[in-house]
Amino acid sequence: MSLLIVGSLAYDAISTPFGNVDRILGGSASYASLAASLFTPPTIVGVVGDDFANESRKLLLEKGIALDGVENAVGKTFFWEGSYGHDLNTAVTHKTELGVFADFSPTNFSRFEEFPLIFLGNIDPELQYAVLEKARSSSPFVALDSMNYWIETKREALEEVISKVSLVFLNESEIRQLTGDYFLPDAANNILQRGPQIVVVKLGSYGAVVFAKEDRFVLPSYLLDHVVDPTGAGDSFAGGVMGYLAQQIASGKDPREAISFATVQQAVVQGTVVASFTVEDFGPQRLATVQLQDIQSRRERYRNLTNWE
Amino acid sequence: MSLLIVGSLAYDAISTPFGNVDRILGGSASYASLAASLFTPPTIVGVVGDDFANESRKLLLEKGIALDGVENAVGKTFFWEGSYGHDLNTAVTHKTELGVFADFSPTNFSRFEEFPLIFLGNIDPELQYAVLEKARSSSPFVALDSMNYWIETKREALEEVISKVSLVFLNESEIRQLTGDYFLPDAANNILQRGPQIVVVKLGSYGAVVFAKEDRFVLPSYLLDHVVDPTGAGDSFAGGVMGYLAQQIASGKDPREAISFATVQQAVVQGTVVASFTVEDFGPQRLATVQLQDIQSRRERYRNLTNWE
Repeated sequence: MSLLIVGSLAYDAISTPFGNVDRILGGSASYASLAASLFTPPTIVGVVGDDFANESRKLLLEKGIALDGVENAVGKTFFWEGSYGHDLNTAVTHKTELGVFADFSPTNFSRFEEFPLIFLGNIDPELQYAVLEKARSSSPFVALDSMNYWIETKREALEEVISKVSLVFLNESEIRQLTGDYFLPDAANNILQRGPQIVVVKLGSYGAVVFAKEDRFVLPSYLLDHVVDPTGAGDSFAGGVMGYLAQQIASGKDPREAISFATVQQAVVQGTVVASFTVEDFGPQRLATVQLQDIQSRRERYRNLTNWE
Repeated sequence: MSLLIVGSLAYDAISTPFGNVDRILGGSASYASLAASLFTPPTIVGVVGDDFANESRKLLLEKGIALDGVENAVGKTFFWEGSYGHDLNTAVTHKTELGVFADFSPTNFSRFEEFPLIFLGNIDPELQYAVLEKARSSSPFVALDSMNYWIETKREALEEVISKVSLVFLNESEIRQLTGDYFLPDAANNILQRGPQIVVVKLGSYGAVVFAKEDRFVLPSYLLDHVVDPTGAGDSFAGGVMGYLAQQIASGKDPREAISFATVQQAVVQGTVVASFTVEDFGPQRLATVQLQDIQSRRERYRNLTNWE
């Protein structure tokens, strides 16, 4: 019971040059929790509608993911329809139906204080802030993801919540838009000066760059022969990072003290490897069948592919 | 006397968001030879016009670069004018004046057979092929760079020369355009089946991927705080790779036998580090002042930035 994941549970319709699916489990909390579950049993806070299938619930429960923070509301589950062209780094959104997510308040959950690590998936920064307020006074290690939409529509709220978290995940265009800085080190320093200890800039298929005040780490993505569907890659990456960090923290320790840059380095390697499985099939189908030993052996191949003396 | 570089010597007018220069030494052979000269004294085959400044000549000679293969023709030196927006990975060409390069024939040079390694910079593939024909019968290790323009206008000639070289440098969009394959491993395998032993896919600021039949290596670029002008980065990278390879080959050895994948790995690391200096100032100004010890110490920082256990 160490990692809480707040985010969306959804159904997605996805089209890529390699096929399409009409309705498959999606949402930031689904991907992040499936990824994290390889390392630690996470708890989700979110909401689903009355169309949420038992099969989806079963899939999550079988991975040891606790759903007692998931509200069952009357109405439809969040639905997203999107497509990718050959540039798999850019999704085009065709439809977003918030459904029960429109009135969602994560603060109905009452056990925030039990979790030393919290991942705030990409949701309204006002909801992210409400969770932070309810999290334990000893201030756990909170990580946040966001997106251009919130930077454009709720910049102040987003800036407020960013100033209170330990780790920020953003992609290149998001961090540039948020900070106004073109070069990633400038943009990351801008964020680091607002409070967070770690900034992870996601580069899609090109990997990621990790910034702390005194340290930096650059890693390419795992080279796959083929990618089928990039949906959920960023959430899986973040979930893998957070799951690994949660696994490393001995219970009772303050994670803000216990998480060294070397641990974050290992965590982003694990997150990169986890995300490389996600994109091999539509939705979370491949991610849901991955075992820890698959992660371990691909991590070795990844090391051979990227390391040099 | 081990590395021959065939390519353009030029003057460039460059504009980036960080400033501009009216007329600065450029061209694939200039950048590649300056980069290679850190490891081995290269010889250039190319052509300049009567406006080619003594100062430019002196800069190259001082670096140990042999210019006896550089023709002095009547007319103007190749001139390129281009600009970059904030996406420093994409140049916009405003003007290309071939000048004396229009009638250039590299085959006026008579000592091709002396060089075990040849780098064919981005020029007309028919000229590249003519050089190959004149190179020694023991078939030296030849590397080639090209660009979209030649894929569009001289595909057959380019495919012919590619089938005869050992190493191919192309960027992502070029290799996709040439092969019709979207995924880099497919595209690289396509090229490897035509003859070359090694394919290096350049990813601009994201690094590079190296493919051989049985081996792959992925490396991000060196993380710089700021980039001023990306002109020449690709040519410096290739020149650094070829210079390092030339340095590793004991004289008399067949480089095609002597160059292992591990050596290529080290070479692309060196090329990456060399190119990271090039982009720190306009034109080759920074590259021209770099010393081998700068390369060595940045290589160490690069290793710390990217390697993990």
